Amino acid sequence: MSYQPPLEDYRLLLSTICPLDKLFALPGFQELDFPVVEAVLEEGSRFAREVLVPLNPVGDREPARMTPEGVVLPSGFREAYRAFVAGGWNAVSADPRYGGQGFPEVVAAALSEMWQGANLSFALCPLLTQGAIETLLLCGSEEQKNRYLPHLVSGEWSGTMNLTEPQAGSDLGRIESLATPEGSAFRLGGQKIFITYGEHDLTENIVHMVLARTPGAPPGTRGLTLFVVPRFGFPPDPPGTANEVRALSIEHKLGIHASPTCVMQYGEGQGARAEQIGELNRGIEHMFIMMNRARLAVGQQGVGISECAYQAALDYARTRPQGKDLKTGEDPVPILAHPDVRRMLLTMAGLTEAARALSFWAFQALDWSRHAPDPRVRMENEQLMAFLTPIVKGFATESAQEVTSLAIQVHGGMGYIEETGVAQLYRDARILTIYEGTSGIQAMDFMGRKVLKDRGQVFLALEQRIRESLASERFSAWQEPKQLLEARLGRLHECVEQVLRVSTADPYYPGVVAYPLMMMTGTVLGAWLLLETCTARPSGLPTPIDGRWRKHKEGVTRFYLSSILPRAEAFAMTILAPDASPTAMASTVL
Amino acid sequence: MSYQPPLEDYRLLLSTICPLDKLFALPGFQELDFPVVEAVLEEGSRFAREVLVPLNPVGDREPARMTPEGVVLPSGFREAYRAFVAGGWNAVSADPRYGGQGFPEVVAAALSEMWQGANLSFALCPLLTQGAIETLLLCGSEEQKNRYLPHLVSGEWSGTMNLTEPQAGSDLGRIESLATPEGSAFRLGGQKIFITYGEHDLTENIVHMVLARTPGAPPGTRGLTLFVVPRFGFPPDPPGTANEVRALSIEHKLGIHASPTCVMQYGEGQGARAEQIGELNRGIEHMFIMMNRARLAVGQQGVGISECAYQAALDYARTRPQGKDLKTGEDPVPILAHPDVRRMLLTMAGLTEAARALSFWAFQALDWSRHAPDPRVRMENEQLMAFLTPIVKGFATESAQEVTSLAIQVHGGMGYIEETGVAQLYRDARILTIYEGTSGIQAMDFMGRKVLKDRGQVFLALEQRIRESLASERFSAWQEPKQLLEARLGRLHECVEQVLRVSTADPYYPGVVAYPLMMMTGTVLGAWLLLETCTARPSGLPTPIDGRWRKHKEGVTRFYLSSILPRAEAFAMTILAPDASPTAMASTVL
Repeated sequence: MSYQPPLEDYRLLLSTICPLDKLFALPGFQELDFPVVEAVLEEGSRFAREVLVPLNPVGDREPARMTPEGVVLPSGFREAYRAFVAGGWNAVSADPRYGGQGFPEVVAAALSEMWQGANLSFALCPLLTQGAIETLLLCGSEEQKNRYLPHLVSGEWSGTMNLTEPQAGSDLGRIESLATPEGSAFRLGGQKIFITYGEHDLTENIVHMVLARTPGAPPGTRGLTLFVVPRFGFPPDPPGTANEVRALSIEHKLGIHASPTCVMQYGEGQGARAEQIGELNRGIEHMFIMMNRARLAVGQQGVGISECAYQAALDYARTRPQGKDLKTGEDPVPILAHPDVRRMLLTMAGLTEAARALSFWAFQALDWSRHAPDPRVRMENEQLMAFLTPIVKGFATESAQEVTSLAIQVHGGMGYIEETGVAQLYRDARILTIYEGTSGIQAMDFMGRKVLKDRGQVFLALEQRIRESLASERFSAWQEPKQLLEARLGRLHECVEQVLRVSTADPYYPGVVAYPLMMMTGTVLGAWLLLETCTARPSGLPTPIDGRWRKHKEGVTRFYLSSILPRAEAFAMTILAPDASPTAMASTVL
Repeated sequence: MSYQPPLEDYRLLLSTICPLDKLFALPGFQELDFPVVEAVLEEGSRFAREVLVPLNPVGDREPARMTPEGVVLPSGFREAYRAFVAGGWNAVSADPRYGGQGFPEVVAAALSEMWQGANLSFALCPLLTQGAIETLLLCGSEEQKNRYLPHLVSGEWSGTMNLTEPQAGSDLGRIESLATPEGSAFRLGGQKIFITYGEHDLTENIVHMVLARTPGAPPGTRGLTLFVVPRFGFPPDPPGTANEVRALSIEHKLGIHASPTCVMQYGEGQGARAEQIGELNRGIEHMFIMMNRARLAVGQQGVGISECAYQAALDYARTRPQGKDLKTGEDPVPILAHPDVRRMLLTMAGLTEAARALSFWAFQALDWSRHAPDPRVRMENEQLMAFLTPIVKGFATESAQEVTSLAIQVHGGMGYIEETGVAQLYRDARILTIYEGTSGIQAMDFMGRKVLKDRGQVFLALEQRIRESLASERFSAWQEPKQLLEARLGRLHECVEQVLRVSTADPYYPGVVAYPLMMMTGTVLGAWLLLETCTARPSGLPTPIDGRWRKHKEGVTRFYLSSILPRAEAFAMTILAPDASPTAMASTVL
């Protein structure tokens, strides 16, 4: 498999819908410029291609394994991780105070997409470390930040998220792990499952972020507190002293075989030594910082693996001769000449590029929410990012299922043979709609916290912004696609209104239509962002966008508007169907 | 996994849209009655549950393997196959002249769905034998029929289809295997790939049906002839004499691990001894008999595995407590109480039951095409079956991708762990849209041979039939779903008209919209058949349909109409989009 990070699409996005030159004007970014970013992306692309891509099939064939000495990763992973850290790739967007390089998040997002596209299993380790960094940065004490952040930012140590227990999956209120005070710290006991990179041999220490209860805490999520549990060297112990935490076993999974998914045991004796992070009983809020960040990152995993699958299918379609051209009669032609193969490839490209545009747009909102001098701009961008997070996670990962499946389909029988490699992408991608909150959980978050809670205010502001933008003359050569978009946007408006109206009378209704509404919003926003990308004049680029890429983008956008956007109408009809909720919820049916 | 064949749905279909009592009036079936069929289905269900279901995970963990003595199947498969043959299950619908039991194909279809739902890898062996039986019956000489059919019908021997070669996948015109005359027979040489059950240890002989060229034959598919190559005992050799055919290797696949997918070598010395079947250079037509039959059967594989996945997800949803009820506040509740989980389960049930209705309906058309005394009825049913074949194959197998994926989704993180079993269903199902002609090939068959060739005549007759049926008073309690169906049927009519109009001007256009048209037709016909099933008065049943099943069916049908049928509109918008074809085919885009 020869994955090439799509640098030209990154340059296009970073000069149109996520204009870097405007970010460079903000405090914190003023020493950066486009050529520096381009050089970093080029270098990242080289690392992805040369180091991570070749390891991807190795990790699939040779899963992470449990040994008497603990969890061991596949051959080559230690060396690759060492090179990753040595290259500074773990620290791209981190705060310079703790050793980070202070790049915008949207630039780090492009790099992260490359790692995911090249090797999902490998890239999960820094993804989770990133979440731990974020949480410590926003909720940790100065002492905690100084103790953990330099090691996590450099990548010398890794981080994990510990939420799930056997009886507490999506329902975190049922967490039973218990942290009992001992002096200024705690002793923590309990079992956590599905802990990604819960144990491994890549770093000298692992910093576990753990949700647990304290004695006498209120029931449900309001009684959860966040703790940090280092695997080694709980202060004031010396660095090598083991804490009471270990992996009991690792799971045998459908995909991401190289990523160790651990059952973690905390406290087999007196309890694992733990420090509280942030406030007592506010662990769920603190964990959500980590989780929202991780959700955007999982969305990017969807984009990265989709891009890789698309490229593999396109390569195969260009080189496999089979059948004759329906128009010219040439025989044989590469299967790329067949309309149905082109339909599949364009669907793959359309979904992937729409999801990327959404993801980049969310990450630049994150940058603006932190660096804009105007507090109103910061707040608006914070709201936008929160609105987009479940959409990016939901839409990009659901799309990844379809795109990786189509990659197999384009390969025909060869796609079903493991040696070809696309089957691995299909298996690896299948986790993406599940972890960090299933698509159903994303949909409920979107419906409940992002639409119903503010009575659609953020949505309406965004709709207004889209309508204003579409009124511009830039779209004169795009009248027909533009009208298709306006029609679906109108239907989305109808759906939101109906949701706001009906949800008070029928408490099940928002749940029944949450998934369609999230997917519809993603489908429509994706169309808009693709159109914007095609029509906006790129700003700040040292060299213009490659003409072939522009032609590709325009074609993919037209195809998306004519052949993918119609799905939004199917979602609308489902949302507006009068008896969908009573039928779905009737106890006699299932 | 505790798969239970859905006998009540079979009874409902066999007493409404596929009325067995009418079939029993036809010559050949007059000694049958409903109680006999019910007893056979009960017994089949027991065999599926007790013998095939427990073997399914065994076959996944312990793939078929190549040994110095040839291909060996997983433990237990030999014993299960022996019991299958001893139970007469291989011979249900076969001609009594050759040892068959002469049941209608639609009854055999119900049984076949059970084998597929219980164990896809196992059931592939009799599926292919069935295809060989069909071809020999319709194209073989009396001598050939007498030589092979009794052994194939009993299941003592198995059959294979040998089409694909490395350079000839969907494009069979590129087949290079060569059969050279020798006396009244042939010597055949060449390599075939992806040969399902090409070699195994279940039967004492294997009858290979092989497409090959003869010296001087015209190029392309018009130069292909069909041959039969028994593994042992080519006449007049004694039974144990080996022919020159063997498996060189077997593939390492994403799923169906127990089913050996072989690279077959014919003729390593003087050539494998082969007999011509049917006419010279008409092999492709003869093979299509086998292939069409196999296509319907693969559609059933999609239905069977979908049913199994649905039941697994429903079981899990009923027993996994997590979260609180949105209306009653009860906490915790089984996840079945959550609207989004119900949406997923209803989508699974809707797609599965619509696909089953389509599949049964096609098989009963097959029965009528053979047994109706009136030649016009025979011809109409033959045309209907030909029209439905690519739809059943395409719609049921594409649905199986979605249904098995949703089964993982309902299980959340547990679904991604191989031990749970649904991941196997997801991997096994992925082959279904590929083998026996990819979905793209089905779509082109549908578009070219079933819509364009007769200028939409069969479609228009079917549309008329649907409209007449919907005018009946039976639908008075179903006004709203009925109107939804009529609206989509109208759009389908528009699409067919546009296809007929535009396809002459733009030869790529039918290819671009073939897949959406096939899927749209399947989605609409599925809706109609579900509605018919709900509203028709069952005839001929010894005992009435269970009330709970009826409630389930009515709810699933309403959900399908409100929440799945809208997809037909998305397909319509794609088909009718004015620039879909020029955009897709522009060489600058991909």
